Amino acid sequence: MTSAWSSFGAKDSITALEKCRWPVIAAVQGACFGAGLDIISAADIRYCTEDAYFCVKEVDLAITADMGVLQRLPGLIGQGRARELSLTARMFRAQEAKAMGLVTEVFPDAAALQAATMTCAVAIAAKSPLAVTGTKRVLLHSRCHSMGDGLEYVATWNSAQMPSEDLHKVTQSLQNKAMQPPRFSKL
Amino acid sequence: MTSAWSSFGAKDSITALEKCRWPVIAAVQGACFGAGLDIISAADIRYCTEDAYFCVKEVDLAITADMGVLQRLPGLIGQGRARELSLTARMFRAQEAKAMGLVTEVFPDAAALQAATMTCAVAIAAKSPLAVTGTKRVLLHSRCHSMGDGLEYVATWNSAQMPSEDLHKVTQSLQNKAMQPPRFSKL
Amino acid sequence: MTSAWSSFGAKDSITALEKCRWPVIAAVQGACFGAGLDIISAADIRYCTEDAYFCVKEVDLAITADMGVLQRLPGLIGQGRARELSLTARMFRAQEAKAMGLVTEVFPDAAALQAATMTCAVAIAAKSPLAVTGTKRVLLHSRCHSMGDGLEYVATWNSAQMPSEDLHKVTQSLQNKAMQPPRFSKL
Amino acid sequence: MTSAWSSFGAKDSITALEKCRWPVIAAVQGACFGAGLDIISAADIRYCTEDAYFCVKEVDLAITADMGVLQRLPGLIGQGRARELSLTARMFRAQEAKAMGLVTEVFPDAAALQAATMTCAVAIAAKSPLAVTGTKRVLLHSRCHSMGDGLEYVATWNSAQMPSEDLHKVTQSLQNKAMQPPRFSKL
Amino acid sequence: MTSAWSSFGAKDSITALEKCRWPVIAAVQGACFGAGLDIISAADIRYCTEDAYFCVKEVDLAITADMGVLQRLPGLIGQGRARELSLTARMFRAQEAKAMGLVTEVFPDAAALQAATMTCAVAIAAKSPLAVTGTKRVLLHSRCHSMGDGLEYVATWNSAQMPSEDLHKVTQSLQNKAMQPPRFSKL
Amino acid sequence: MTSAWSSFGAKDSITALEKCRWPVIAAVQGACFGAGLDIISAADIRYCTEDAYFCVKEVDLAITADMGVLQRLPGLIGQGRARELSLTARMFRAQEAKAMGLVTEVFPDAAALQAATMTCAVAIAAKSPLAVTGTKRVLLHSRCHSMGDGLEYVATWNSAQMPSEDLHKVTQSLQNKAMQPPRFSKL
Repeated sequence: MTSAWSSFGAKDSITALEKCRWPVIAAVQGACFGAGLDIISAADIRYCTEDAYFCVKEVDLAITADMGVLQRLPGLIGQGRARELSLTARMFRAQEAKAMGLVTEVFPDAAALQAATMTCAVAIAAKSPLAVTGTKRVLLHSRCHSMGDGLEYVATWNSAQMPSEDLHKVTQSLQNKAMQPPRFSKL
Repeated sequence: MTSAWSSFGAKDSITALEKCRWPVIAAVQGACFGAGLDIISAADIRYCTEDAYFCVKEVDLAITADMGVLQRLPGLIGQGRARELSLTARMFRAQEAKAMGLVTEVFPDAAALQAATMTCAVAIAAKSPLAVTGTKRVLLHSRCHSMGDGLEYVATWNSAQMPSEDLHKVTQSLQNKAMQPPRFSKL
Repeated sequence: MTSAWSSFGAKDSITALEKCRWPVIAAVQGACFGAGLDIISAADIRYCTEDAYFCVKEVDLAITADMGVLQRLPGLIGQGRARELSLTARMFRAQEAKAMGLVTEVFPDAAALQAATMTCAVAIAAKSPLAVTGTKRVLLHSRCHSMGDGLEYVATWNSAQMPSEDLHKVTQSLQNKAMQPPRFSKL
Repeated sequence: MTSAWSSFGAKDSITALEKCRWPVIAAVQGACFGAGLDIISAADIRYCTEDAYFCVKEVDLAITADMGVLQRLPGLIGQGRARELSLTARMFRAQEAKAMGLVTEVFPDAAALQAATMTCAVAIAAKSPLAVTGTKRVLLHSRCHSMGDGLEYVATWNSAQMPSEDLHKVTQSLQNKAMQPPRFSKL
Repeated sequence: MTSAWSSFGAKDSITALEKCRWPVIAAVQGACFGAGLDIISAADIRYCTEDAYFCVKEVDLAITADMGVLQRLPGLIGQGRARELSLTARMFRAQEAKAMGLVTEVFPDAAALQAATMTCAVAIAAKSPLAVTGTKRVLLHSRCHSMGDGLEYVATWNSAQMPSEDLHKVTQSLQNKAMQPPRFSKL
Repeated sequence: MTSAWSSFGAKDSITALEKCRWPVIAAVQGACFGAGLDIISAADIRYCTEDAYFCVKEVDLAITADMGVLQRLPGLIGQGRARELSLTARMFRAQEAKAMGLVTEVFPDAAALQAATMTCAVAIAAKSPLAVTGTKRVLLHSRCHSMGDGLEYVATWNSAQMPSEDLHKVTQSLQNKAMQPPRFSKL
């Protein structure tokens, strides 16, 4: 009676994507069901192919999803869509996923998907690591806090980091009308 | 000066839809104004006909809506759309309601609407009652709690219910490649 | 080491738009970058021209945006879109801004934009000031509070204001089938 | 496995004491164990006799107290004392209860207890009902809200009620140096 | 009907004591009633003379206290004592105020009170301003936040300030077994 | 500038005491300064000897305490005492620690302290492990949640655990007027 039913740490593995200092990009091809949706909901950016299809499948397996999709989906696509999809376990396709804001972009095939994902990752990697990690952290913080709390948090965060060397490099680069963007040090 | 202006319990009747253990499906035909929007905002799934039209009418009656629409609408369609619609009392139609995520699907007429609503209700009723009520409850909980709180809540909920007989039936059914879905007991 | 980096009060100026008793309408033409997005995110209604384009630019300047866009954008367009746009600093155009719910309407040119903005402002100004300010205030309150808190807040607010003279005027006007809408006193 | 264990509404009866518009005074003589502590923790004022003794007994009955004492006791006597008493089920007496702030006053016997309780009740009943109910409501609200929220709530509450007739009566009474306190109307 | 009853900014003046970067010490002699309690509740440290006496007087004036005492008192002396004192408007004296944690120390007369207050102020002024202001700020933050939030906040705060010059001076001073404490720069 | 100052995991070690399923008893002899107070604040029960003395020392080392004492102390002894002790770094002794609720009991010497600590630990270990761990968990949950949240949490927790075998054993034992308390299985 007291035996606990647990997800054997799977929940924490998924939350680790969210807590990761660097942005996580999910690239979806084909079926993205159950745990698949738990995982991509914890990513920061989601791309997919035209043939991708999605389903919050848990209710059909007689379980209440407990690896984060019920917590994260409403913030991505709204309370109404999240409830309809979770309670019906209805399958939905790439274009609908884009229309509701679950994925940013739909690509014709796996090759195009992979190329776009790499381009995005490389572009983010070239930016100031401090600004990238700060932006992710502040966005996550804003999710569960009041406006006043959120603004105080980012002010405290920035007073710890600003003015940074990275900001100095950008300012120099802009003043010099440099052809190349500045190169930032690792954190 | 101290006389209290109240909604005579109407507010609680609407919240009862939200607190109901079973999913509530709203089917909208024609005008859905004022209290109509309060009511469907508290439902879990919303369908409508092509000729449905909606309006957060209260501001035109010189009142501040107090039966839940101002609390629930932002979670369904976003803060921006909710504020524009509530402050202008602008009328909007079925397709716009679908685009913003207020309704899931638009049907050509009342007959099609009713058929789809019944089909959806029957499909949900055939699922594990435990999983359906758990999913609704966890989604509602997630709305006002932090990610950590939400994950702890669903873990506590599931440790009370899992492994359930319903899960066992599904596992059996999958192993036997049964032609019929399992039949679940009532709660 | 202890020198604080601050936004010189700019943050508070932007929050003032949000705290303003009256609705604020933002009309965007051309580029709306960085602080531009901070400002319009704090408005209640957003319109733009067909040639408007937007960018959460801060990460490209090696800074973590701290004037409110990271707190307000997720509530307007969802967590997923907000994270993708803030982490990539990708530029996006008017139609995408409308599809994601950032702007309500896109107009062909500046003249049409300005005309529509004025029409909207005049329409709101003709409504009961008490109901307009109450609606804005209650919507802002609902953002960071539980459903129960939100419903209690609006009930307390209304018990302070209701039944108002404005409501009486509307009732009279409806009973008399008046051709003209009632005129409300200033707050 | 899914059978729910509940307190058969007892929890709600106790919460009703807390939600009651009027202050509730608990007078304790002799043993106050288990549900007894749940009940007096939901009161506003607690008196007892010298021979009163108290115990958070649930852990000795192999249950986790679920009628409110674990939620309310920490706010009355601090987190440390509440944890020590709940985890050990240690019995404690009147003077210790007073020292930790659980009871306001200890009386020699039942007669003195009853007299003091009635005196207190009569004194509160003679005060402005509006001010008494407002004070209780605002104190309960403050328990789970930030300072800013609490101050906004009381301001909204008072703007609904002030200036009241009761305040006017007090002002008159003070100006006239009246021998008798003013008599207030019922709510 | 819509006329707002307000405290004419008095509430904000009192909150300013709490928001002040430096600790505020309240020294109470004689009567501390109504607004007096609002003010000292917003201080960080409270001393008084043996002849001081206190009263949450508002309910006797037929008003619901709205300048902060109902929000701050429960955190200082517990929910039970705060409710009893606010609902009865009972007067209480210096020793009881000390026993319940409202004041830290009781002094025989005004001269002793003033001397002790100055000694305390001078001692705090000699400490690292950075550590003093950080300690006050983190304590205030902890009041309305979860444990996790509080620990993240202080970590972010310290990553902005540490290792500070002040910490370096203390380390040097300890290593040199200096007779004099280090002198810290102003913020 | 961006180098982070951290407590090298010490903070998490201390939080582990709080998250531990079983109650933690702190026994203090002699000096309990700085990290000592961080540690005992995370315990569930605190005992000390007559010669114990305590100090929130961090401000004197020019640092803002970041291992939990500023978050946990206010819940144990109240906001006022916590601020006074943290801002002055004043030393305080066993009897004052007991009067303010920091320690439960003061013992004459180390032998008495150790004996009492073991007696308490043995007594708790003999109780139903399910009820003990549930009580600790629910008390920790209540700290940062509203009354409604807290009551729903304990109800969900108990519906997962009740009726337990332990409760059955207690009921049997009471019915049989057993001389020995029941023996409970490990979790």
